[in-house]
Amino acid sequence: MQCLQFDFNLVFLDSAAQKVLIVYAHQSPCSFNTGAKDAAVEELKNKGCEVTVSDLYDMKFKASATAEDITGGVKNAGHFRYAQEIKLAWEEGRLSSDITEEQRKVTEADLIIFQFPMYWFSVPAIMKGWIDRVLTPGFAYSQEKRYSQGMFKDKKALLSFTTGSPEAMFSPTGIHGDMNVSLWPLQNGILHYCGFQVLAPQIFWAPSSQTPEARKSMLGDWRTRLDKLMGEEPLSFLPLDDFDEKCLQLKPDVAEKLASKEFGPALGIHLGKRLPPNSQMKAGV
Amino acid sequence: MQCLQFDFNLVFLDSAAQKVLIVYAHQSPCSFNTGAKDAAVEELKNKGCEVTVSDLYDMKFKASATAEDITGGVKNAGHFRYAQEIKLAWEEGRLSSDITEEQRKVTEADLIIFQFPMYWFSVPAIMKGWIDRVLTPGFAYSQEKRYSQGMFKDKKALLSFTTGSPEAMFSPTGIHGDMNVSLWPLQNGILHYCGFQVLAPQIFWAPSSQTPEARKSMLGDWRTRLDKLMGEEPLSFLPLDDFDEKCLQLKPDVAEKLASKEFGPALGIHLGKRLPPNSQMKAGV
Repeated sequence: MQCLQFDFNLVFLDSAAQKVLIVYAHQSPCSFNTGAKDAAVEELKNKGCEVTVSDLYDMKFKASATAEDITGGVKNAGHFRYAQEIKLAWEEGRLSSDITEEQRKVTEADLIIFQFPMYWFSVPAIMKGWIDRVLTPGFAYSQEKRYSQGMFKDKKALLSFTTGSPEAMFSPTGIHGDMNVSLWPLQNGILHYCGFQVLAPQIFWAPSSQTPEARKSMLGDWRTRLDKLMGEEPLSFLPLDDFDEKCLQLKPDVAEKLASKEFGPALGIHLGKRLPPNSQMKAGV
Repeated sequence: MQCLQFDFNLVFLDSAAQKVLIVYAHQSPCSFNTGAKDAAVEELKNKGCEVTVSDLYDMKFKASATAEDITGGVKNAGHFRYAQEIKLAWEEGRLSSDITEEQRKVTEADLIIFQFPMYWFSVPAIMKGWIDRVLTPGFAYSQEKRYSQGMFKDKKALLSFTTGSPEAMFSPTGIHGDMNVSLWPLQNGILHYCGFQVLAPQIFWAPSSQTPEARKSMLGDWRTRLDKLMGEEPLSFLPLDDFDEKCLQLKPDVAEKLASKEFGPALGIHLGKRLPPNSQMKAGV
């Protein structure tokens, strides 16, 4: 009986449509970012995916983390602690409806695409607000369930964004510095922290400086990539098992094995060695 | 006559009170962050500084970058481009009053302290909103005036923040990775980009896990530091002159001089070498 049920589930999972959530932040429907978002919606739907878009500016999504995110009163109004209060509110089903609705979309999604223009080497504030408010403790992570053991380890996530400057300026010899470094806090600290399998970012370098033909070509490349996106190998991060449970430091035997390597094992966990090149931008590095 | 005027200015500058702006983001007046902010206000006032606090949650500071930031209508409503529109609005004095007021405070300040709890390896969304909306093109930077030639090169800035995890977890062997890496996009990409002399960050490691005595001691250390803060040597970044004007790549002769060095010249501009240790956390590194 158990075997039959197992088979049924396998068949069900195979035939179920993949669900994609696009968290999208641009103010204008004529923007390149809209073009990238629309291309993703179209290509993924053509492949049979169910696609949902959270259009943050259109939704006037609340960015700031406040006591209004909790319904039915906070536990300690005298000393309001956001993380504790939203964890409790999540457990008791008392988060505000806008957060609950986004969490429902996250729960259903197999893949989340964040589509945005890079603002100040990061996501725009409205998208940071989505991250701060939706990825609540309890729902998105716990002390036990994070990084490679994270809540969302069966889901994939991808940053898709435009820059204002060309690629060379974001290199290890360019004035803005290595883009891999700027991506680490976002991709390791947010996406990998929640357990997501992080797909290589889709970076549209300075589309506003390009000809209409070049912009069209960039979107064409994105469409080509989308066709096989769900089968891509994710970026590589160190497994949680490589760290000791108490202090979350790299275990001595793991560190010893890495001692003779030229590069550090991960961008932030570099052990004083050279950074692994392009580890935040390409899979299999 | 010119000489007399020069002397007068020198005397005036010497005797003028230093002005400090604290951009502060915590929801609760009982928090450790409030304690850190209050300590800064008190110590700096005791030293004769004029201190202004922008209490972002109390102000209900708008975080999202929208067309409402521009008064008197936008130039191109059909294709709204935030950066272009706010640059024009700044030139024409048509930014919304909340932005104009914060820009006035920035213009007057000799030092800006950003006081916040670290959310997802960065600033909370409400503070990212302050950065996105207040540091507008034209006001805070231009193509010509950025990095070491930046608009605010005569001002200092400092990140003062609390973490949820202890220091070891943010080391090059810790699970979160090197804190220096996470600070680079904030300190290089925002503060140094605008020209600020970036003082070493004040990091309060996991105060919520500490005893009341330990928390008091942390604030005591902060008060001691504040006493001599304005005389501190800033963090080191590469001068804009080290990059070619066209592509903003490190000049070949500069790169050649650095070729024999063990460490890269800056965290993001690492040239494939080992990262300079603690370059985002300590001056003189």
